[in-house]
Amino acid sequence: MTQPIRVIQYGLGPIGCAVARLAASRDGLTLVGGVDIDPAKAGRDVGEVAGLPAPLGVPVTRTLAETLDRTGADVVLHTTSSYFDLFKPQILEILEAGLDVVSTAEELSFPWRDHRAEAEEIDAAARKAGKTVLGTGVNPGFLMDTLPLALSGICQEVRHVAVTRVINASTRRGPFQKKIGAGMTVEAFREQMAAGRMGHVGLPESMAMLFDTLGQRLVRYEDGVEPVVAETPVETEHVRVGAGQVRGLRQVARGFTDTGEFAVLTFIAALAEEDDGDTIRLTGRPDLEVRLRGTNGDLSTVAIAVNAVRRVHEAAPGLVTMRDLPVVSAW
Amino acid sequence: MTQPIRVIQYGLGPIGCAVARLAASRDGLTLVGGVDIDPAKAGRDVGEVAGLPAPLGVPVTRTLAETLDRTGADVVLHTTSSYFDLFKPQILEILEAGLDVVSTAEELSFPWRDHRAEAEEIDAAARKAGKTVLGTGVNPGFLMDTLPLALSGICQEVRHVAVTRVINASTRRGPFQKKIGAGMTVEAFREQMAAGRMGHVGLPESMAMLFDTLGQRLVRYEDGVEPVVAETPVETEHVRVGAGQVRGLRQVARGFTDTGEFAVLTFIAALAEEDDGDTIRLTGRPDLEVRLRGTNGDLSTVAIAVNAVRRVHEAAPGLVTMRDLPVVSAW
Repeated sequence: MTQPIRVIQYGLGPIGCAVARLAASRDGLTLVGGVDIDPAKAGRDVGEVAGLPAPLGVPVTRTLAETLDRTGADVVLHTTSSYFDLFKPQILEILEAGLDVVSTAEELSFPWRDHRAEAEEIDAAARKAGKTVLGTGVNPGFLMDTLPLALSGICQEVRHVAVTRVINASTRRGPFQKKIGAGMTVEAFREQMAAGRMGHVGLPESMAMLFDTLGQRLVRYEDGVEPVVAETPVETEHVRVGAGQVRGLRQVARGFTDTGEFAVLTFIAALAEEDDGDTIRLTGRPDLEVRLRGTNGDLSTVAIAVNAVRRVHEAAPGLVTMRDLPVVSAW
Repeated sequence: MTQPIRVIQYGLGPIGCAVARLAASRDGLTLVGGVDIDPAKAGRDVGEVAGLPAPLGVPVTRTLAETLDRTGADVVLHTTSSYFDLFKPQILEILEAGLDVVSTAEELSFPWRDHRAEAEEIDAAARKAGKTVLGTGVNPGFLMDTLPLALSGICQEVRHVAVTRVINASTRRGPFQKKIGAGMTVEAFREQMAAGRMGHVGLPESMAMLFDTLGQRLVRYEDGVEPVVAETPVETEHVRVGAGQVRGLRQVARGFTDTGEFAVLTFIAALAEEDDGDTIRLTGRPDLEVRLRGTNGDLSTVAIAVNAVRRVHEAAPGLVTMRDLPVVSAW
């Protein structure tokens, strides 16, 4: 048995705390610290903040440096922000400290198309540090990119890719229900959409990974979000939706080559959405249809981040993506 | 664009010829030769034997050395035998010639448990040559090992794995229908089973890859084959099966840890089998159920071998398995 890999949890929101709990329980990993900028968390025991069964014996610190003053570490599990402008300084800081990074930042999952300069900056910093950076998650990171790519391995030819993810948000956390617009008027939904960061993050990254890996040239990308409107009232423990109000969203991204549409990614998350599950259709030789049931965004994002740690720790230095690593499995 | 990878097709049976055709048609690959021990094929143009649209301008040779006298090459696509005793000298010969190997040999897909000494010998030869060896295919190589492992990446915990592959053999080649016993009496089926090499090859390899990768200890392995008996007559263009005769086989492998069954792999191939498709069930956190339709053993084995070429050519030296490589996708 090799030495356990020492991990620091950076970001102690709901997902970060769940990642910390899984990392602490996993043979082969040792949770050695936690970082969060929230002053209400700093100074409290990491175990208490993350909901571990016992105190960890070290406090949450507001900076990575403060935790590294107390302990050595190998890998940082990073769960703070989806967006490059917010997470980039953190990733660079972790690399400068000489640690590998597994991040759930959506824009980091395949940044070469939409954030090339920043991706190159992180890649260079990682190579200089001799460390590895991965952006992962269920989506982006798996369902709409890595998994369809893996399935394409048994196809002689792929002419079209269609992935549809349908989430019945009634079973999900309150913040998730709010995030998809549940309970809003259609007007308020459209206003908030127009104002900026609403909807699922990551479709452009999944699209770019598909095209790049399958050797297709992405000449046009379209992405739109529409409200899913309740025909009858819907109520959960977190939100009440009247008839005619929004119960969720439907987001569709289309990628085109010179000759037409090559891939369509559809993300539907709404309360009382019955057909919960994921469908991947590859058109080619042969045609493949794959149906998944049971993928759970919260449980699974936590899982894939922790599961990726050993692969990232063993990988060659640089900014890598899920398609570049050996199979990320449970262990 | 990098230089095309030059490949030699070693083994020109039906699968090998299909591999050669796909390799010849793939941008990024150049088919430069073909090897087959069959004297009826040697000397004829590779393109003619493999069914390419045009002659290749080089003859099939009975030995690899004869082809290498005429041309340089990078990778050998190897499709000759399922069994170590038959393919091992060929793999060693290819490595000594300084070429990478992608093989469809089932026993090579994860040989560390049942053929450890031979696996170590091949691994050592590969490292010495600075080349890479991969055993791949749809099954073993993907459906019952790599794909369930990839799916486990979104699970926090996996307590049980069940994979069932159901093939409606009515749609398959004549030799495949014969291979699964279609048209035999139950008595003849059992005699031939007892005599040795009948049934699907590769379940022990898939099982070993699952256990090893998921960190489970395989303390007991069971594998049995039963005939699937026709209740009413079945007829295909290749075979007639009377009521009471065998229309196919059902093979079940079970793997156990100290605490009980951890994985069950079920392979059913029979004429007139209605529920054609593959099902993967992971029990854990979360439970996952995945249904695949459209996987075609012949098309897909050819696909995955050719698709693996670029990954193998880029990989570090040694004997590797599908779980060790970056995502093998179409390209």
